[in-house]
Formats: sequence, C-alpha cells, structure tokens
Amino acid sequence: MPGSRGKAVVCVSGGLDSCVCAAIAASERDELYFLHADYGQRTQARERECFEHLARHFKAADRLVCELKHLGEIGGSSLTDKRIQVSEADLESGKIPTSYVPFRNAHFVTIAVSWAEVLEAKAVYIGAVEQDSSGYPDCRREFYDAFQRVIDLGTRPATRIKILTPLIGMKKSEIVRLGASLGAPFELTWSCYKSSDLACGTCDSCALRRRAFAEAGIADPIQYAV
Amino acid sequence: MPGSRGKAVVCVSGGLDSCVCAAIAASERDELYFLHADYGQRTQARERECFEHLARHFKAADRLVCELKHLGEIGGSSLTDKRIQVSEADLESGKIPTSYVPFRNAHFVTIAVSWAEVLEAKAVYIGAVEQDSSGYPDCRREFYDAFQRVIDLGTRPATRIKILTPLIGMKKSEIVRLGASLGAPFELTWSCYKSSDLACGTCDSCALRRRAFAEAGIADPIQYAV
Repeated sequence: MPGSRGKAVVCVSGGLDSCVCAAIAASERDELYFLHADYGQRTQARERECFEHLARHFKAADRLVCELKHLGEIGGSSLTDKRIQVSEADLESGKIPTSYVPFRNAHFVTIAVSWAEVLEAKAVYIGAVEQDSSGYPDCRREFYDAFQRVIDLGTRPATRIKILTPLIGMKKSEIVRLGASLGAPFELTWSCYKSSDLACGTCDSCALRRRAFAEAGIADPIQYAV
Repeated sequence: MPGSRGKAVVCVSGGLDSCVCAAIAASERDELYFLHADYGQRTQARERECFEHLARHFKAADRLVCELKHLGEIGGSSLTDKRIQVSEADLESGKIPTSYVPFRNAHFVTIAVSWAEVLEAKAVYIGAVEQDSSGYPDCRREFYDAFQRVIDLGTRPATRIKILTPLIGMKKSEIVRLGASLGAPFELTWSCYKSSDLACGTCDSCALRRRAFAEAGIADPIQYAV
C-alpha cells in the first residue's frame, strides 16, 4: 500500500531496472531517498542526468550522489578503464563480461545501508537482476541474502533494515511489462555502456534491453545507432 | 613467513590497531597494498599523514586513498558531524558511543575487496578489535564471518579473497605488546578523535589507548593534553 511503510533508500543508476525498481518502491513506501554513484563509468554524465530526472519524477524526499573515484582508480572493468574495450553482446556464453566492475554492487548497498541507518529507513531497494542478465556475481540472490546478514550484524542492535531486490528473479521482459503497468518513465532512463548521446545498440546492456522490450511487445522510447 | 604468501590489501586508518595489523601483514605477505579513507572525520588530515608515514615505513607496493564525502554527508556520528559532541570515554557502559559511524567498516572492506580482486590479492587485513573496544557492531567477529560469505558470493568464481582480522579477539594491551615485539612504529600513529595536534587524552579512543599502554607496561610515544 502506498504511504504505509515509511522511508526507503533506493539505489538508482538511471537505467531501466532501477527505474522499475523505483516505481515498485514508490508503490510500497511513503518517502523515497534516491542514491546514485558516479564511479568513473563511461556514460557517467548521462546516467547522472537520468538519475536527476527520475528523482524529480518520483518526488524523492532527498538525493545523495556519491563520487566513487576509487572504483575508477581500481579499474579492472571496461566501464571504468578506457584501455579495456566494452565487449559486444554475448548473451549466451555464461561468461562474465568485461563490463563487470569488481564487487560494485556491494559499494552501492553499503552506502545505502549507512544512509538508511541514519534516516531510520527500514528498507533499501536495489534493482539487481539475476536471471536473463549479464551474469555478474553481485547480482545473484544469494549475494543479497548473505548481505542481509552483514547488515543485521554490522548496524546498531535497534536498526532494522531489509534489503529488497524485487526484480531479482524476473525475466527482463517481465520487468518491462511490470514497469509499463506501473507507469515507469522509460524515456528518462539510459542503458548503453558505450555512448552517452545515441545508444550504441550492440553492447551487452543495449542488447539485453532491446531483447526485453521486443519480447514484452512494448516500444522502447530510446533511439539506437544501429 | 615473510615473502611467502603474495599480495594483500591492508586497511590502514593511521591508528594504533591498524599499525599493528600492518606489522602482522608485513610479517606474513610479500607485497602490501595500503588503503586509507578520508570520510570527513574530525582528525582527517592527521590520520592521512600517519597513513602516509606508515605506508613508507612498511614499504607499501601501492597506496589508495579514497574520499568518502558521502559518509560525511550521511552523518549520524560525532566523528563526521560537528554538531554532535565527541563523548568523553565511558568504557564500562556497553553503550555504542556517539563516535560510531554507521556501517563504516563495511565501506572499507568493500573497497579493499574490489581492489584485491583486481590485484589478484588473496587477503584483506583489517585491524578491527571486538573485545576491550568501543562496542561498534561492525567490529565484531561474526560481522566479518558474514562478510566473508558476501565476498565469496559477490566476486568472480576464480577469485579467492580471505578477510583477516588478526586483532579481533585480542585485548588492547596484548595488541600493544604484539606491536612492540614486531617493531611497530607507534610514534607514527594517531588515535585521538577530537584533536589533530595534541591528543586530548580523554575521548573514548585516547582512553582505550592509554589504558592499553599502561596495562602492557610500555611507554606510549604520543603526548597528551591532560
């Protein structure tokens, strides 16, 4: 029920999944606190812009934008190290793509938990997707189950924060359908890993998004280069 | 054995415990990667200076200093919010002191793990102390045990990173004795939460340190105001 369950921190990258995740959070909580990170990723400025638009759309009670320059300095990913090429989509191989940023989602959840503890928010939402995704280890359900225990043990005894991953078991096309049913503003999102003006259409993230909209039978409002 | 077990990332605040932890790491690994965070804490500049001296002393192969401005923005602690007073020591109450920074050590460990994954380091050291300490929830052994599972699940399948907390079960006086036996450079460390020039002598952190040196029967090379 909207308005029934207090505050929540929502991790919002500015992509499709985080937009739908925010729409779910908006339907379940009264006050949303939007968290975003710049970490030297290639399309940082565009993602940030989408985050700000989404925060306005969902009437976020507050916003926190973190600069995680160290993730860029640490490197090890084609998203943050320009010497590593963003690979073309290979959705069937089961290999972890070059875009994997080591342990990235742990950074987002950790910041969200610190903020939630101070806000006395009872929930942290993150739009991680396990199935039908890129195979990042930090997108798996068991990772978040384990993280829940870290939260329970690493915060004050009176603190009760649940980590919620409402999309984790969904197919990407189901996420698109659910988002459409909740009126999620897809036109305010950015998914491409390579480009910030016109989505490349061929990177892993573009490929997953296009397949999802096609399977859902819903038009993607974003334009693609090819 | 020194030189026998590859690379390790060491979380180094610049305080007594992290100095002894680094001395242990130096005795067990060949290459140390020193990690430090500025997070808007009151004595940030002094701690940073100690970190740099310790990195030089221990011949760190590389250093990473992270700016976690968001921890300051999130606040909720007397260390990062100047409107909250640093409480005088109360070592017996069992209450969590105002200096607790919500979920702070999770931030340090998370960054250390990302770095370790890219470096292919097999260990992350952190000088957390459970017993005889301030009672922070993120200094407990079970917190690190839970975090180990998050690391195992949230990194690449081939990645093997152990989180090591060699001081966690030690009394503070034992840490001082162990440090002395390893030749840890206590004169390069800073513990005071309040002041950056002359240690106050009365905050929680000063009180714990003084008691530890007194119990160990070892002279503390640091001067105190009172």
